[in-house]
Amino acid sequence: MTAPLRVVVLGAGTVGREVVRALLERGDALRPADGAALELAGVTVRDLAKAVAGGIPEALLSDAPAHLVADPDVDVVVELMGGDEPARTLIAAALGAGKPVVTANKHVLAHHGAELEAIARRTGAALRFEAAVGGGIPVLTSLAADLASNEIERVRGIVNGTTNYILSAMASEGRAYADVLADAQRAGYAEADPSADVEGLDAVNKLVILARLAFGAWLDPAEIPNRNGGDPPGITGVTQADLAAAGESGLAIKLIAEAARGEAGAGDTIQAGVSSVALSQWSELAWIGGVTNCIEFDAVPLGRVGFTGPGAGGPATASAVLGDLLAIARGGGSTWAGLPEAGSGRVATLARKDSFDAPSGARYPVLP
Amino acid sequence: MTAPLRVVVLGAGTVGREVVRALLERGDALRPADGAALELAGVTVRDLAKAVAGGIPEALLSDAPAHLVADPDVDVVVELMGGDEPARTLIAAALGAGKPVVTANKHVLAHHGAELEAIARRTGAALRFEAAVGGGIPVLTSLAADLASNEIERVRGIVNGTTNYILSAMASEGRAYADVLADAQRAGYAEADPSADVEGLDAVNKLVILARLAFGAWLDPAEIPNRNGGDPPGITGVTQADLAAAGESGLAIKLIAEAARGEAGAGDTIQAGVSSVALSQWSELAWIGGVTNCIEFDAVPLGRVGFTGPGAGGPATASAVLGDLLAIARGGGSTWAGLPEAGSGRVATLARKDSFDAPSGARYPVLP
Repeated sequence: MTAPLRVVVLGAGTVGREVVRALLERGDALRPADGAALELAGVTVRDLAKAVAGGIPEALLSDAPAHLVADPDVDVVVELMGGDEPARTLIAAALGAGKPVVTANKHVLAHHGAELEAIARRTGAALRFEAAVGGGIPVLTSLAADLASNEIERVRGIVNGTTNYILSAMASEGRAYADVLADAQRAGYAEADPSADVEGLDAVNKLVILARLAFGAWLDPAEIPNRNGGDPPGITGVTQADLAAAGESGLAIKLIAEAARGEAGAGDTIQAGVSSVALSQWSELAWIGGVTNCIEFDAVPLGRVGFTGPGAGGPATASAVLGDLLAIARGGGSTWAGLPEAGSGRVATLARKDSFDAPSGARYPVLP
Repeated sequence: MTAPLRVVVLGAGTVGREVVRALLERGDALRPADGAALELAGVTVRDLAKAVAGGIPEALLSDAPAHLVADPDVDVVVELMGGDEPARTLIAAALGAGKPVVTANKHVLAHHGAELEAIARRTGAALRFEAAVGGGIPVLTSLAADLASNEIERVRGIVNGTTNYILSAMASEGRAYADVLADAQRAGYAEADPSADVEGLDAVNKLVILARLAFGAWLDPAEIPNRNGGDPPGITGVTQADLAAAGESGLAIKLIAEAARGEAGAGDTIQAGVSSVALSQWSELAWIGGVTNCIEFDAVPLGRVGFTGPGAGGPATASAVLGDLLAIARGGGSTWAGLPEAGSGRVATLARKDSFDAPSGARYPVLP
């Protein structure tokens, strides 16, 4: 019998609550047949009273995450606070102390991934982040481990559910951007300040993580364009008239994150970008509606593989976090699996041939 | 430095040749950063002269697979001979001797999976078989490991490329079954004796493997229906007129493998079947054309996730075999990961509500 792993969960928001509930209510079922049991040792929140009201046992709660991370009785840290600090420092501290970390924090990974990977490799602590891209779709582990014998030439997909929900509703219901955005905010699909989603910055963060695993380099998110040329960022310039005109031309407009290996001889250059693009209505990506995510890899010699599923939300994201915890309970390593240590890469603009000239004056690149 | 793992490949057909070539030509690139190197120690074939003519170095070749499996200098066995015996005995012998095995052999797994799993668990040797379902799509590892915190309620998909190619060509080109089958045989998409594919038995084997990982039981493939009621098996009764009439009703006819958890109180019963069914032209499965595979899981609490990609062919299947070899080089366990040991399950007929009455007189169940 292996001793149980004592897990602390930092943050009890939408995802954290689901993870905490699963560990409390399904702990026995979550024990791998060939690994250690997972025991919830603590939950840190900012507002203790609110967490107690939400049903988390008071004895587990703390508002001192750094204290729990440093506690020698804590074996594994699950970071679900989001944002930059203090998440970055807490993850670094846990890894530095040799403790495995599971996180869904795409911002921290995109901005400090190289630093955190270096610490994890130095101490041998696993850093797992399946939940950071594609919610519950097991896309990162598949890319890093199962497809490891391939060269990845291109990664592309719909990685932001909020913007896909807005574009889908605008296209199918003929409604205006501001109108649909307001509805999405009421329904909880968009945040009060929606800029990270609608301007494409969330998708940029996810693309940095995908590119790390696909191309072996941590890109600087600030270098990745989130718009076409001088157009408005993300989906903020997409009009209902643009969507209708695209539809009449057999095209759909989607916010696509895409990265491709640079041209031969271009050194460590990786083409990357997030923007609203036009694609054939007959392509799989055009069909992805609502908050669903879809991510495709062009792998050599394998060919194209695609992954579709719920890209956001508490239960879906918690599924990926719990999958990572189970991997750690089985002695598994980091999400980058057997890939070599990442280098750094420079971002180049994606090469595009055709464009769709929309009524608003925007020029949407047409994906082949 | 870990000592290299010495690998023998049994069989040098379409998939074996690709695996051998990768190990010979890309051996250095295939070394995981955190694991052992893979060294090709031997290749067994029936026809030595043909293998030499095919470019495999004579020094590596043997026509005595049992000898190599038993050789104490061999660490890992890759079984790519296909069929029942001697593959079953060779896999059992390797696992019994504590040697990890990678196989693409869906027949052996579907018919002797329980026996092989028991041996692997007894000796602690890993048995990996990602290539047995969905070719290069990383569907089994995702199901067993990444989705492990979920209850799987339903598995369904297009898991046989040959029949999907035939149905796609019949529907889009308005051609007759026999005509398209003859073409598929000429193009190498169908075998000279196509019965295992067109009668749905290959899909039944794959469904047994999916059900093992989804529902924790090895089903008896002989108990799984490969037809609707008294209709002809697999796709052998599908006529061009049926496809055309279905299309006019907004439906597509596909060969679907499906298994679902039995009704509450039904004990270890699992609903399972492979047959030609009608589904909405707006569903993802209806859109899968040609030899592509698509597999969907309904997981709770996650939701539906789908995997699409090349389900057959040498390079795609070799990608999955090499992914499994890399996992073994990193010390990874069996494809069933942390799942509990399988029990046995009884097969019940899939509950269906609606049917599409086709011109041929066949009644195709309509998938919801």
